[in-house]
Amino acid sequence: MSFAGPIARLVNEFARLPGLGPKSAQRIVFHLLTAAPEKIERLITALQEAQRSIKRCSVCCNLTDVDPCAICRNPERNRSVLLVVESPRDVAALEKTRGYKGVYHVLHGALAPARGIDASALTLEHLFRRVRQEKVQEVIIATNPTIEGDATALYIAENLQGSGVKVTRLAYGLPVGAALEYTDEITLSRALEGRREIK
Amino acid sequence: MSFAGPIARLVNEFARLPGLGPKSAQRIVFHLLTAAPEKIERLITALQEAQRSIKRCSVCCNLTDVDPCAICRNPERNRSVLLVVESPRDVAALEKTRGYKGVYHVLHGALAPARGIDASALTLEHLFRRVRQEKVQEVIIATNPTIEGDATALYIAENLQGSGVKVTRLAYGLPVGAALEYTDEITLSRALEGRREIK
Repeated sequence: MSFAGPIARLVNEFARLPGLGPKSAQRIVFHLLTAAPEKIERLITALQEAQRSIKRCSVCCNLTDVDPCAICRNPERNRSVLLVVESPRDVAALEKTRGYKGVYHVLHGALAPARGIDASALTLEHLFRRVRQEKVQEVIIATNPTIEGDATALYIAENLQGSGVKVTRLAYGLPVGAALEYTDEITLSRALEGRREIK
Repeated sequence: MSFAGPIARLVNEFARLPGLGPKSAQRIVFHLLTAAPEKIERLITALQEAQRSIKRCSVCCNLTDVDPCAICRNPERNRSVLLVVESPRDVAALEKTRGYKGVYHVLHGALAPARGIDASALTLEHLFRRVRQEKVQEVIIATNPTIEGDATALYIAENLQGSGVKVTRLAYGLPVGAALEYTDEITLSRALEGRREIK
């Protein structure tokens, strides 16, 4: 390749991001270096700001710049209902429905023993402690409708059995194999309404 | 949106890059913030390094971290043949062919009066000065086969008329491996016009 070293290194970093390959990374880098040099500065600033200020909420484990996060601090949210998701993007998708008024718990993944992701890699202990210590009445499991999401849901349901807490799961209005974050808002709302208790 | 401010701002910056939209930008940002925090650091470093060290070569206007660039400094390149392209990516594409041993001139765009891009926005004066001052024998115009690329090629050819320099343009025709039946009419017409005798 005939790119100068710093260009090649920058293309490399972009090419490693999800959804980007060498060609799209090249396109972005030359755009930054030629058409829009001011965007480099803004991108650096935004990256540094995110790196410095974004952490996990000590209550729900969602990503936030203030701790506890805006949802956990909101006095109007119902703390007795706790919705468990795999990722912060799922929280964003559910918030868009405007239909849910409880709080969240972000697992940061799903159980995948084959890929070395066991219970300790997720925030499951934190979740069980929360359920024991707070006055939680219902845990709504909203892991993705995939094998890994199902296994995680089952694991949570089994661990909460006998705790007196109602455990439900989003209805299978979701197409099996889909990712929660790309599901449209109406389907998400329906799935929320139709949630079933896991017995 | 329920994203924290710094996340939303970072998503915004990524979403403005070519080829990316809000969803793909979100995916990248959450990947950076959750799965791969060390990539943020590497991306910042690569951006800062590129911002600091990448400039235009004072000879050919290609992007480079050393001035003159590696191609212009290479004593084995033939300085009497000068290939004119719109962008640094075109130089990279041509270098990959390993078939060209002359030097380059990067215009950083093509003439597009409707979008306010006139001759002064490109490196055209620099090109004409180069042709006058250096012992250039042939200028190969390799602007894109678009209306704007054609207009730019014509502008260069007219300006170099009477200078004694041979001005050529990359051949139009069928892309290698293409199917004739799926080739657009204009390309087919050009391929027909430019037909060569088989000897």
